[in-house]
Amino acid sequence: MSAYFRRVASAASFRAARSTKTELFAGDQLFVGLNCFEPGQTQPMHAHAGADKFYFVVSGKARLSVGDETRLAETGELVWAPADVPHGVIEVLERTVLLVAIAPPPKPRSGAT
Amino acid sequence: MSAYFRRVASAASFRAARSTKTELFAGDQLFVGLNCFEPGQTQPMHAHAGADKFYFVVSGKARLSVGDETRLAETGELVWAPADVPHGVIEVLERTVLLVAIAPPPKPRSGAT
Repeated sequence: MSAYFRRVASAASFRAARSTKTELFAGDQLFVGLNCFEPGQTQPMHAHAGADKFYFVVSGKARLSVGDETRLAETGELVWAPADVPHGVIEVLERTVLLVAIAPPPKPRSGAT
Repeated sequence: MSAYFRRVASAASFRAARSTKTELFAGDQLFVGLNCFEPGQTQPMHAHAGADKFYFVVSGKARLSVGDETRLAETGELVWAPADVPHGVIEVLERTVLLVAIAPPPKPRSGAT
């Protein structure tokens, strides 16, 4: 197993009940992981105080919102969600893998395992 | 033009003389852009003090090094280059587009336009 190299498709996982989140790598300054969606699954609008984020569509097709923009994003599209700006995944039309980067990294929830 | 959505392939540019760097988005915490390589072009080993970085291979095939690992990375591979660890693009076998994220963002060079 490599310490620095990771094939993204191998790390994707899907669940019928709801979308999944997978960590790929995390440092003190930057987190990168995957959000994986089956058609019909969504991510409610939310914002990260003081943290910049982007999604990159590795595969699939989904409608995302950032601020007052809502667009269909397909494979190869980058979606920028700057600090404090609400964003979410409104509608997933195909099985979709989003690469997600966020800086600074989210803090682990207290008591989370 | 969208403020938040960007098709990565449309932002890629290539130059015969050397690889190119393109900014996609930058905030106070996170920078995301592209590094584009023609076969034979390289990026010398370097490190970012205190800044975490990753490459994601959007298209192409290249040999990258991080620390003491050197691997061939193809479309869909993520390469993590943590703060202070030397990394670079050793050999480019096909025209290659790397998505690059770095946090915190690199400081603009003094006098740069």
